[in-house]
Amino acid sequence: MSRFLSGRHKSLVPYTPGEQPTQRQYIKLNTNESPFPPSEKAVLFASEAARKLELYPDPTCGALHAAFAGRCGVEPHEVLMTNGSDEILYFAFLAFCDDRHPAAFADITYGFYSVFADLLHVPYTLIPLRDDFSIDPEDYVGLGKTIFLANPNAPTGLALSPDAVERIVRGNPNNVVVVDEAYVDFGAESAVGLIHKYDNLLVTQTFSKSRSMAGARLGCGIGCKDLIADLNTIKYSINPYNINRMTMAAGLGVLADEEYTRQNCRAVAETRTMTTEALRQLGFSVLDSKANFVFAKAGWIGGKDLYLKLKDRGVLIRHFETPRLKDYNRITIGSREQMRALLLAIEAIREELK
Amino acid sequence: MSRFLSGRHKSLVPYTPGEQPTQRQYIKLNTNESPFPPSEKAVLFASEAARKLELYPDPTCGALHAAFAGRCGVEPHEVLMTNGSDEILYFAFLAFCDDRHPAAFADITYGFYSVFADLLHVPYTLIPLRDDFSIDPEDYVGLGKTIFLANPNAPTGLALSPDAVERIVRGNPNNVVVVDEAYVDFGAESAVGLIHKYDNLLVTQTFSKSRSMAGARLGCGIGCKDLIADLNTIKYSINPYNINRMTMAAGLGVLADEEYTRQNCRAVAETRTMTTEALRQLGFSVLDSKANFVFAKAGWIGGKDLYLKLKDRGVLIRHFETPRLKDYNRITIGSREQMRALLLAIEAIREELK
Repeated sequence: MSRFLSGRHKSLVPYTPGEQPTQRQYIKLNTNESPFPPSEKAVLFASEAARKLELYPDPTCGALHAAFAGRCGVEPHEVLMTNGSDEILYFAFLAFCDDRHPAAFADITYGFYSVFADLLHVPYTLIPLRDDFSIDPEDYVGLGKTIFLANPNAPTGLALSPDAVERIVRGNPNNVVVVDEAYVDFGAESAVGLIHKYDNLLVTQTFSKSRSMAGARLGCGIGCKDLIADLNTIKYSINPYNINRMTMAAGLGVLADEEYTRQNCRAVAETRTMTTEALRQLGFSVLDSKANFVFAKAGWIGGKDLYLKLKDRGVLIRHFETPRLKDYNRITIGSREQMRALLLAIEAIREELK
Repeated sequence: MSRFLSGRHKSLVPYTPGEQPTQRQYIKLNTNESPFPPSEKAVLFASEAARKLELYPDPTCGALHAAFAGRCGVEPHEVLMTNGSDEILYFAFLAFCDDRHPAAFADITYGFYSVFADLLHVPYTLIPLRDDFSIDPEDYVGLGKTIFLANPNAPTGLALSPDAVERIVRGNPNNVVVVDEAYVDFGAESAVGLIHKYDNLLVTQTFSKSRSMAGARLGCGIGCKDLIADLNTIKYSINPYNINRMTMAAGLGVLADEEYTRQNCRAVAETRTMTTEALRQLGFSVLDSKANFVFAKAGWIGGKDLYLKLKDRGVLIRHFETPRLKDYNRITIGSREQMRALLLAIEAIREELK
């Protein structure tokens, strides 16, 4: 820290992303990346766009907004694309939270919400999950706060029903409810259909997971025209050219190839079922995930021990030190081959301990 | 505006980027883009990177920081790459400005500084340029404020001498001085060499102009280790994966092709000399620009009129409505052919008015 850092940030603890090792080659099941390459169309369009890098990208993202809105059944002015979904979440904290509109989110959820709140000095309330890690929608009704709700939740993978989500949105008519659907395509139901019914609903999504574009950084918000206008005010006050030409083109490419995305999501869901069953056979309790990861606890080894022993064997999974999470690990659903390698490694570790 | 937008932002006026027309094909001399295509290596590396979009980019930007630091003669931990230089400027406002550290910058300079300050409710002082649009370094000494200094300045194109910049940095030992060198490669001298002498100096640069990568969004900050650590605290609290894989790769590509960049900068400087002389012949007063644009006023037509008449003829230049600027226009230095077309159009307009 320098002597110049604003006193506002002296106790700020930044977000810790999952390890991105550059030295050793791991089976990477720690950051919820897709095991499938990007759509060929995304690659092609991005490569074409790279030839025109001397020109600024379209700051309005016109073509991409139109294409994505079309896929979602909404209007272009009801969407805003951002540099990953972290950016749209940050914009939402800036736009819709302050001392008079504190934030509220689950005590166990995407770890970035509390970092955004700390950075911006937004007061926030943590709402405990039930003992089984599920969310009780009634806890979120009539809060008088700006709500951030990951659905499916991370790192649990548990999803709320559409009715439960609507109950929360309807139950907070004077506050924005942000439904973070980073993982929605793997088996949960989207709340996008509700944006024409509720002016306080902002849905956020990402192209990182189901669309195999974590490396391109493309996220978005979907909400009524006025909410999107507010978020545009923030965008044009921070970084009007937030989406580069290549990412914009890759986004157009993958949206022209939706069958590929659907097929990959089906494959992940099937592999998740296979993995969940196999882990249970191996003595794990595994939450019923609707995401591209599972959250699992072994009866016979601690979470951190398992993480370290798997790392030794070249398999990376995500471990959290938080008291309520430390017995568990979050394991990304990779390809069938990757999951077989994981399961073999776990069997070997179990043998070793016998 | 929705009824949910935080009261903090109700009077916020976002930045207005230059027009990026998508309908008609213009000779675009309005956003200081390079007339040259990106380096072939940048295109090649970016296209290669597009094949691996399913994986997150390296959040530490390790390879790119090392390559860029090498080019600058500094250490990798003394640089931070960002999503365009707007992002590093925003990070600097967040990190180094607050009520106790208000900002200060010229009354005529990059228009985004005041937007960042307004968004973050940082108090700021505007320091008037001299009548000839130059900066008096003595106005910036001992200010007790965080200083943002564009060198060369925009939209004037005028540059301070290295001694003058050092005078300002030395004269504010207890405040950060941000020297925004977006246009430095076209003829001014960089202050990067001073970062080991002054712990309060942050230099920002961009790959948008001299490196023909406006469409890739790549900017950076260069400063002492502790300043960069502070900016990393901000980055990891907003968007750890702020640089996508393709942009990162394009950055590595163009850095491996520095002779191409140097050659393009020389060409721009030559075309600038030719354009300046020709405009003076046509009755313009033109400031002595060190950037890839000129700031020019015709004795025989108003700034807005000229802008509109040129637009009619398919040539876009940048007009500002501000009282002190309205007689002038900022004209990007394009290719020789583009500048010839501009000059012919101006001649035709002058004939028309006779």
